[in-house]
Amino acid sequence: MKDQQLTSLLNQMTLEEKIAQLQQLAANFYEGAEEGGQITGPMASMGITDHMIENSGSVLGLSGAEQVIAVQEAHLRKNRLGIPLLMMADIVHGFKTIFPVPLAIGCSWDMERAELSAEIAAKEAAVSGVHVTFAPMADLVRDPRWGRVMESTGEDPYLNGRFARAFVRGFQGNDLTGDVSRLAACVKHFAAYGLSEGGRDYNTVDLSERQLREYYLPAYRAALDEGAEMVMTSFNTIDGIPISGNVKLLRQLLREEWGFDGVLISDWGAVKELIPHGVAEDEAEAALKAIKASVDIEMMTECYVHQLPALVADGQVDESIIDEAVLRILKLKQRLGLFENPLRGADIEKEREVIFCDAHRTAARELAVKSCVLLKNDQVLPLATEQRIALIGPFANNGDILGPWSWLGSTEEASLLAPAFEARAAAGKVTVAEGSGIESFTEEQWLEAKAAALEADVIVLALGEHSDMSGEAGSRSDIRLPEAQRELLQRMKTLGKPVVVVLFNGRPLDLSGVIENADAILEAWFPGSEGGAAITSLLYGDENPSGRLTMSFPVSVGQIPVYYNHFNTGRPLHAPGADKRYVSQYLDIPNEPFLPFGFGLSYTTFSYSEPILSGEIMTKDQPIKVTVTVTNTGNVQGEEVVQLYIRDISGEVVRPMKELKDFAKISLSPGESQEVSFTLTEEQLRYYHSDLSFSSDPGQFKLFVGPNSQEVKERDFRLTLA
Amino acid sequence: MKDQQLTSLLNQMTLEEKIAQLQQLAANFYEGAEEGGQITGPMASMGITDHMIENSGSVLGLSGAEQVIAVQEAHLRKNRLGIPLLMMADIVHGFKTIFPVPLAIGCSWDMERAELSAEIAAKEAAVSGVHVTFAPMADLVRDPRWGRVMESTGEDPYLNGRFARAFVRGFQGNDLTGDVSRLAACVKHFAAYGLSEGGRDYNTVDLSERQLREYYLPAYRAALDEGAEMVMTSFNTIDGIPISGNVKLLRQLLREEWGFDGVLISDWGAVKELIPHGVAEDEAEAALKAIKASVDIEMMTECYVHQLPALVADGQVDESIIDEAVLRILKLKQRLGLFENPLRGADIEKEREVIFCDAHRTAARELAVKSCVLLKNDQVLPLATEQRIALIGPFANNGDILGPWSWLGSTEEASLLAPAFEARAAAGKVTVAEGSGIESFTEEQWLEAKAAALEADVIVLALGEHSDMSGEAGSRSDIRLPEAQRELLQRMKTLGKPVVVVLFNGRPLDLSGVIENADAILEAWFPGSEGGAAITSLLYGDENPSGRLTMSFPVSVGQIPVYYNHFNTGRPLHAPGADKRYVSQYLDIPNEPFLPFGFGLSYTTFSYSEPILSGEIMTKDQPIKVTVTVTNTGNVQGEEVVQLYIRDISGEVVRPMKELKDFAKISLSPGESQEVSFTLTEEQLRYYHSDLSFSSDPGQFKLFVGPNSQEVKERDFRLTLA
Repeated sequence: MKDQQLTSLLNQMTLEEKIAQLQQLAANFYEGAEEGGQITGPMASMGITDHMIENSGSVLGLSGAEQVIAVQEAHLRKNRLGIPLLMMADIVHGFKTIFPVPLAIGCSWDMERAELSAEIAAKEAAVSGVHVTFAPMADLVRDPRWGRVMESTGEDPYLNGRFARAFVRGFQGNDLTGDVSRLAACVKHFAAYGLSEGGRDYNTVDLSERQLREYYLPAYRAALDEGAEMVMTSFNTIDGIPISGNVKLLRQLLREEWGFDGVLISDWGAVKELIPHGVAEDEAEAALKAIKASVDIEMMTECYVHQLPALVADGQVDESIIDEAVLRILKLKQRLGLFENPLRGADIEKEREVIFCDAHRTAARELAVKSCVLLKNDQVLPLATEQRIALIGPFANNGDILGPWSWLGSTEEASLLAPAFEARAAAGKVTVAEGSGIESFTEEQWLEAKAAALEADVIVLALGEHSDMSGEAGSRSDIRLPEAQRELLQRMKTLGKPVVVVLFNGRPLDLSGVIENADAILEAWFPGSEGGAAITSLLYGDENPSGRLTMSFPVSVGQIPVYYNHFNTGRPLHAPGADKRYVSQYLDIPNEPFLPFGFGLSYTTFSYSEPILSGEIMTKDQPIKVTVTVTNTGNVQGEEVVQLYIRDISGEVVRPMKELKDFAKISLSPGESQEVSFTLTEEQLRYYHSDLSFSSDPGQFKLFVGPNSQEVKERDFRLTLA
Repeated sequence: MKDQQLTSLLNQMTLEEKIAQLQQLAANFYEGAEEGGQITGPMASMGITDHMIENSGSVLGLSGAEQVIAVQEAHLRKNRLGIPLLMMADIVHGFKTIFPVPLAIGCSWDMERAELSAEIAAKEAAVSGVHVTFAPMADLVRDPRWGRVMESTGEDPYLNGRFARAFVRGFQGNDLTGDVSRLAACVKHFAAYGLSEGGRDYNTVDLSERQLREYYLPAYRAALDEGAEMVMTSFNTIDGIPISGNVKLLRQLLREEWGFDGVLISDWGAVKELIPHGVAEDEAEAALKAIKASVDIEMMTECYVHQLPALVADGQVDESIIDEAVLRILKLKQRLGLFENPLRGADIEKEREVIFCDAHRTAARELAVKSCVLLKNDQVLPLATEQRIALIGPFANNGDILGPWSWLGSTEEASLLAPAFEARAAAGKVTVAEGSGIESFTEEQWLEAKAAALEADVIVLALGEHSDMSGEAGSRSDIRLPEAQRELLQRMKTLGKPVVVVLFNGRPLDLSGVIENADAILEAWFPGSEGGAAITSLLYGDENPSGRLTMSFPVSVGQIPVYYNHFNTGRPLHAPGADKRYVSQYLDIPNEPFLPFGFGLSYTTFSYSEPILSGEIMTKDQPIKVTVTVTNTGNVQGEEVVQLYIRDISGEVVRPMKELKDFAKISLSPGESQEVSFTLTEEQLRYYHSDLSFSSDPGQFKLFVGPNSQEVKERDFRLTLA
């Protein structure tokens, strides 16, 4: 359909038909869906009429080619103007083939594999009839109490932006109209949802506009620059205004300043939530504020369909505002080719071939391998095939390794740790025991586990958080492993055998009670469908761990927030000649996180040469090239993430102690060296000034190269602006 | 001296003499001071010359009439134009007679006694030769990890403003020129120092300007409205700009918008700290930024004296800017009457009479009584005179009860707990044992304490934090009682005797390990010189506890920040029909603090009638009067703090769940009732809108009356604007 046809279509629509396009309802409202088709309980109580459903614009959470086809066909039979439905769903880290959670993918620092994971997710979802995914999440996170850190790629704006772009490319491809195996991406949650106060989900956010622009907005912007079709509002307030009614952030910044002309959707119920937030007295005011802020689609509440007709009638809302919103929705349908091909990729036959196919599972396994982070290894790993293994713990034989947001993933078909161990170890060398529950520990469990452990050469403890302990609304004030498991570990330690801990969890943990009792720790996060196979390949050294943390692990919850790109303060702790007391510090813990951003071990070791600069003066036209030689000084092949940071010594406003500017992931054979070069340009030194202008300042800089944000070699340079 | 004489004096000054007025050095630089008079170590290394000292404007931390007189007289002999020195010092909660720390004074809700404490502090300091005190601190605090919460009156902007005013009145009186027993007050730390990230002192602060104006600025403003002569800058950044170089916050907001024309002083070293902060490359840039921001006096670093001459010479700083700063300093000297009376209140003879006199100690004891908060009492308190008491713990006989910022207080002359108990209990009924150190616990201590406890009817445990564990740079990531003391308490509990815990500490604590093992808890804070006597009078029921918390006690450090005037969120936890999972909550702890703002027990009980409103409609001209009858339903006389809160149901921006608007402290005999009325006006409903305008919105409100921020009775009303 051409643009002028869209306009003509819009002109044929009644006001009621237009407003219905702005409503998104769940699958069960629709004829053809498994639970759909009747004006029953929820619909009646929500005041949703058949007529509204016939004219509605999009469906939430429907998938499965057969169902989608049935719903779309039924819809088109009834819809007066033949406007197809948009099918939207949360496809976050895989559809049926579940990849590691995004925080784990972040630790891979692997943009190609991240992109591939999104491409595969799109392929599986598209063939099941989905058109739009509510991903990627580009929220910057600094508080591990917040359950949704698992859905972010971490604490760095640059790296998050790189991942957001990779995911958008993977979901959308190059031709959304022609390639029906792709999905439209909806970047979320705009904006700064990751700063929820106290790490409590949905809580208040407050920050200066400059910090917002400097740290929180870049990754959303990167997704949009990559062409993400949609944006989702976040649940939080910023500066006292909930986002779904925030004119400044949505209409002024996102629309006018950034020129975003795609579809903006509220998060689940977020328009009506303007009432409990306390900026709308009733549904009418909520609808008014949301539509004025340019929210196009209201998800799962009905302020728009119930209130907009009267708001237009009494002149509070100009119909042109509604026309703009509808046109954006129609254009998205157009770009997805739905007018010509309303069933799009939905294909019952292909569905069976594509979904959860071997190639997809292989990709999931490979990405899981790259996402695990080796946190400690006192010469225990890798395991030897002939060693007797006691595999113990609540995750030893547990399918809850897919993580939050894996609603279509199958725990039954996932690769669990116990069978993976049995497949990899020599025959009869693995004994499995539960040891404890996630939050419970009985003497029977202990006795069984102890017996297994005493027969083994190595104890492998599979510990962690239940997937409900992170994810949406999964905030924890205590971010240690549950006490039952710390107790299990402590008792295991007393048996005098080497103890390897494999962690399954959705957030950086306080590792108290773990670090001192484990000889080795592999952070496996929620590794997805192929978790077991991926982890055993790492534990046995078939693969070499290469993941690097993208979110700091705090010493304790009392250190939060702790992140690598902090300010120096006026009284830095380790400055030469600093006072002993009157410096910025805690009396009881260090300022540094327990494990820093960028950290991860390998079965080999790497050495870094001193970095060599092409010059010590940078100008607008003359970048600085920095070269470092990295050598594999160990005995096995390994991958290293070479990281480049800078520091602007003196700015118009305070600049962070370090800012990641680039990185390279390289693979080296034992003894092999490789020169790694980065070109640093003036553009990369720009930042937001107090007047919100974005530019660089001449002056002194430092540049750091190293394997993580703490162990770096540094060089000085100056920027001069001619 | 008249204004025109000041101008004439200014005109006689050389640039160098002017700049020297802007420098503040510590006492030991000055002839006549105990360690002064020689260009030795620090002075030489700082590049301070005799000439600079001769012309300098003020002295830090000097007191004692004899010394002050000697220094002032020596100075005037050398100073070409005869400009006297200003003597400034940190007189925070008493000079020699130490009152409870400000956080404790906050819990008194007693403005008269707070004012009196400042008046007495002024009297003692003034007779010792001090002219200016660096108090009150008006920083709003929400993070008990921060050590300086002890120096604040709490988490509420309105209450902090009331206290800031009371302290200013107490320090300054009505006639600073005529009444030489008063001090000029310097309100600090401008601004929002209390929001230091992670509760780590000196750390980054970031917030929106609206939040700054709404919560953080009002108490500073209140102090200025009360006439505070000076303002001190804070160490932190706001929005990336350290305050001492923050033109927007100082020159634009404080000077131009608020019209503050008094002296603005940097905190210790804060001008030079613009360099480590990273907004100044060197001392010259630091001096330039600070003087442009309108900082008049540089405390303890020398960027001004070293750099301003050249900055004026090369035209970067206009001499008129320096003239303005000097004139402000001269005007303060004028208002203090120093030109006519350079020794002012300093009086060696009166010093002996006034300082630490009985009347002052009585006032300190009375305020300590009002500041203690009874947190728990399972029918153990009050004690009976005849009961055998085992007084145990590191604070049983310890002078470290004055708290931080009590440099002239004498721990030897303080009223300690053990002698106070011995004085109050029947003869021979008190046994004292150390029990444990603050952070150590030996078996010998245990055995001695156990023996004492086994002989007693009641165990009184005096536990807490060393005074260095709070105060400046006293940040703790773990805010529980130190483990040694929790262990002592736990063991004591096993003895089967009633256990009363008296807490000495400078912050809200996580009471885990205390609350479950104590039958009664009295929060004594750092009660000051008369702590022992005050506490025993409360424990024995000679006085009835009436303190009410002004800062929430969190369930655990993982709940920080937790404060009563938070937002509702879009998904409040306890809303009718709320989802079980998808609400704003932690999985492992409640949202509510362990002890809320306004909370405190008494030896009696109070009942509240339903509040009666004069009407349900408020207009600009028609306030609402709310009346509640409070009855003492117990058996002893007691004081109650009747608290009035409101909630604006729907604002242009989100409004807090509750906002304290007024309170009344009343005293009731057993069975006595009293009507308490508050008049609530439209003015009290005003707040900062998104455009920073300050006004009220018509609409629905709630009004709450009760004994604390959680246990309230509510009424609805509407504001209509004709």
